[in-house]
Amino acid sequence: MSDISAVKALVFDVFGTVVDWRTSLINDFTKWGEANGKKADWTALVDGWRAVYAASMDVVRKNPQDDYVILDVLHRRSLEKLVAELGITGLNDADLRHLTMGWHRLHPWPDSVAGLTRLKTKYVISPLSNGNVALLTNMAKFAGLPWDLILSAELFEHYKPDAETYLGAARLLGLPPEQVMMVAAHNHDLRAAQKLGLKTAFVARPTEYGPLQKYDFEARGDWDIVAKDFGGIAHRMGC
Amino acid sequence: MSDISAVKALVFDVFGTVVDWRTSLINDFTKWGEANGKKADWTALVDGWRAVYAASMDVVRKNPQDDYVILDVLHRRSLEKLVAELGITGLNDADLRHLTMGWHRLHPWPDSVAGLTRLKTKYVISPLSNGNVALLTNMAKFAGLPWDLILSAELFEHYKPDAETYLGAARLLGLPPEQVMMVAAHNHDLRAAQKLGLKTAFVARPTEYGPLQKYDFEARGDWDIVAKDFGGIAHRMGC
Repeated sequence: MSDISAVKALVFDVFGTVVDWRTSLINDFTKWGEANGKKADWTALVDGWRAVYAASMDVVRKNPQDDYVILDVLHRRSLEKLVAELGITGLNDADLRHLTMGWHRLHPWPDSVAGLTRLKTKYVISPLSNGNVALLTNMAKFAGLPWDLILSAELFEHYKPDAETYLGAARLLGLPPEQVMMVAAHNHDLRAAQKLGLKTAFVARPTEYGPLQKYDFEARGDWDIVAKDFGGIAHRMGC
Repeated sequence: MSDISAVKALVFDVFGTVVDWRTSLINDFTKWGEANGKKADWTALVDGWRAVYAASMDVVRKNPQDDYVILDVLHRRSLEKLVAELGITGLNDADLRHLTMGWHRLHPWPDSVAGLTRLKTKYVISPLSNGNVALLTNMAKFAGLPWDLILSAELFEHYKPDAETYLGAARLLGLPPEQVMMVAAHNHDLRAAQKLGLKTAFVARPTEYGPLQKYDFEARGDWDIVAKDFGGIAHRMGC
């Protein structure tokens, strides 16, 4: 365990770490479907959508010569394919937009807001997410996330785990990497951050993928902090 | 006066509009000088520093082939020249850094925080400043400015009034320009924003430059809102 006393800012993975995207989307779409007479297996849609998430970003990550495409657009493209594959009918353009914007309306895990609020008293706190700036900004308003600023893959035109995101965050914060701590429920995110000199904090979110969860039940690396929730991170950081 | 009912976000000029840089810096440096035995005409230094502000950014604006330089660095360069010109002696590197970081420790005008807090209940609020991201983030912590996110010239590698800043802000917010309102105490800033389709709000800060104030005592354009303070803007925006 290394020295974390120099840390000045904590940056957070968002989908799965701060917010429960799966339960949020399934509930949102189920309610919306009932109110608007739209029928589908929303759980299958949400799980299928997230299953193609990494691959959709890899298209951008592996073709840096092409223009960067924000996550809202990747989400929309994936949704259109998935709706066809699942044979969901009766969705017009406004409906597809409403579903895509569902990623802006995600609820936090029960400990997120209280933990962030404690950490904010002593540190700069920000997302460092693959979500685009507007998505993260709208989500913060919706969920009451008290960020000091919004750091997004969009600002660097690179998706995590590209180095440009972690180092770009430190650069914009005016801090050396070792004064920035990456917080995530995903070991691979922390691995990339640690390799570049950032400090790391892991929190398990074992229900993130529901019955489909395969990884990240526990810490799989030498992280600076391993906590059971954001309250535990705040405690370790002296807040 | 045009329709402002579609506005979703307000972006704010910061130096002079949100914070009183002149009084803040003079007081900060005077106190620091007394405590540390450093003698200088701090008022002359602060006024001289701000007097070369526009010119220092113009060097970047007019040489876009060169690498972008953040405001902290421009401030430091201007300070070194000015210290020599004013014949201030006895300042080491740490002292020059302390003075430069003074721009991160600025106090708000008396109405700023209350007005922003009201506006935040209905709108996305952000700086749109030539200050770099770390400067604006640190200032927000210091002054209690409740921004939803930090938009800075640094993100666009262009200083205001370059079009890239106003249009870049709208793009990152995921909004067309007419759904974004620029708030400033400077008519030229609003003129640039309005030309690009943003809505505009003017608030006079007639003591910004102290006895040296020459412009911006009043609105000099067809701005959507002209208010006496941020409370007046909040009122006009239905908050």
